[in-house]
Amino acid sequence: MNEVVEITAPDLLAPAFLRIQREIDSAFDAFLPVPPDSRARLVEAMRHAAIGGGKRVRPLLLTATAELFGVARTPAVNAACAVEAIHCYSLVHDDLPCMDDDALRHGKPTVHRAFDEATAVLAGDALHALAFDILTQPDTSTDPFVRGELVAALARASGHEGMAGGQMMDMAAPDEGYDLAQVTRLQQLKTGALLAASVEMGAILGRLPPEGRGPLRAYARDIGLAFQIADDLLDVEGDAALAGKALRKDEGQGKATFVTLMGADKARAQARMLVEQAAGHLAGYGAEARLLQAIARYIVERDR
Amino acid sequence: MNEVVEITAPDLLAPAFLRIQREIDSAFDAFLPVPPDSRARLVEAMRHAAIGGGKRVRPLLLTATAELFGVARTPAVNAACAVEAIHCYSLVHDDLPCMDDDALRHGKPTVHRAFDEATAVLAGDALHALAFDILTQPDTSTDPFVRGELVAALARASGHEGMAGGQMMDMAAPDEGYDLAQVTRLQQLKTGALLAASVEMGAILGRLPPEGRGPLRAYARDIGLAFQIADDLLDVEGDAALAGKALRKDEGQGKATFVTLMGADKARAQARMLVEQAAGHLAGYGAEARLLQAIARYIVERDR
Repeated sequence: MNEVVEITAPDLLAPAFLRIQREIDSAFDAFLPVPPDSRARLVEAMRHAAIGGGKRVRPLLLTATAELFGVARTPAVNAACAVEAIHCYSLVHDDLPCMDDDALRHGKPTVHRAFDEATAVLAGDALHALAFDILTQPDTSTDPFVRGELVAALARASGHEGMAGGQMMDMAAPDEGYDLAQVTRLQQLKTGALLAASVEMGAILGRLPPEGRGPLRAYARDIGLAFQIADDLLDVEGDAALAGKALRKDEGQGKATFVTLMGADKARAQARMLVEQAAGHLAGYGAEARLLQAIARYIVERDR
Repeated sequence: MNEVVEITAPDLLAPAFLRIQREIDSAFDAFLPVPPDSRARLVEAMRHAAIGGGKRVRPLLLTATAELFGVARTPAVNAACAVEAIHCYSLVHDDLPCMDDDALRHGKPTVHRAFDEATAVLAGDALHALAFDILTQPDTSTDPFVRGELVAALARASGHEGMAGGQMMDMAAPDEGYDLAQVTRLQQLKTGALLAASVEMGAILGRLPPEGRGPLRAYARDIGLAFQIADDLLDVEGDAALAGKALRKDEGQGKATFVTLMGADKARAQARMLVEQAAGHLAGYGAEARLLQAIARYIVERDR
């Protein structure tokens, strides 16, 4: 079983996406009942940001990794919901007028448009706290070691040494733009850290010891980079209606991306190479890793 | 030793404040080395928000509670630093133009004034993540049970069921204003939850089982309310130069506060009553609780 598995598996991928999308929506729905007082507006804004939108790539990565190790569904979905809460809060804050000033997200008005700016700041903050709240609930893990490792992985991936640090690098880009090494580092933090944490948290739930996580970490690193290259390509070539958000923003801002630095053709080839390489890292898992392989391919072939 | 202890102890309080202020500054300094890349601006903004300002009431509460149970200093200071990171992030976001639009905090320009709005949003987010990062570091606790409980207490206290929920209630106040019961509920969430979490986390580090935490929780609830009444009084009667921030804001906004609802004299009497009551809850701890008693008194007698 140690050969590289065929990675086209649309039959596997579509139902897996549908399933996790339903599960994450329903988990957020359960975690966020609307209270009967004036906090209702906050919780409505959190629900607007978290429910009924998004591809749920991170949750799918987490649950697919957890499946490799026979983790029960509820803990995996809860941990996935925590990662997605972090992702959602980051989108709410990134969309703010003082950041990207976006009006549309997942085909709906952004939180500050649907509510107001102060509510959007607060809803992001409350989703951020919710992530860690979820990770410490008994349904997510009854093993305190696992719980601590989950919190550590998620906190590290989202802070100044992870996602927030990458976002700052993006905002603080010099006039002459970053070079390829710097863009790679930026994206490893901004997008890669949370994608990698999703895989890592699946392995943590599966009680895979850190010294056994090498292949999964290599897989996560490669698809993280491929994901961002695909995003840069979509920004240039994608369909805004499909994406449900504004595109062609990098160009307008004169930003250095994988596409501006490498050209679209080379960037596309690089993304495909990374996906093959990612698939190779999972060879040891054989057919069990089919879903993770399919996710890798999806990441570069998606149209939104 | 079961009598109520004399709660004036300025000799105890001043050095305790000085000590924790130094310790928290030095902990943040160690947790936040400025990186040699363009994340430097983010970390500088986090340091601006977290180092060299603030009374450190929450850290003092946490470490004083931990002391009751003989907890070592480093874990207590680290956990205190996590609570303070949450408090600092909430101030950075509250000060934003779309929230309170404040120019001054702790006598320094607010983060969005010293840096810019986007950096302030991001610095708040990164301090938020840092709090949970700190709680999972081995220096904070080697016991995974303790670690999980610390994270749970802090996440719950800061999210939509705690601080962020209270902030929303504040922003969503009806035109006619809240009544006393509603203002009490609002403040229990907005200010009380994090003060209570500070005491709770001290007890968690001290491995006091939940069923033994009743007196400490009652103490925390009473001083939380007293703290907010004192804040409302300071907003009306305080000295902005001492406070290092703008005052008389409640009045300008026609906001219902303990002072507008009860009158200054009754509010002051109520705060004093709460402090005596808080002190009473700790009677069982005898002289060991002198510092917590002194903090309670300080909370209503402070001039900033």
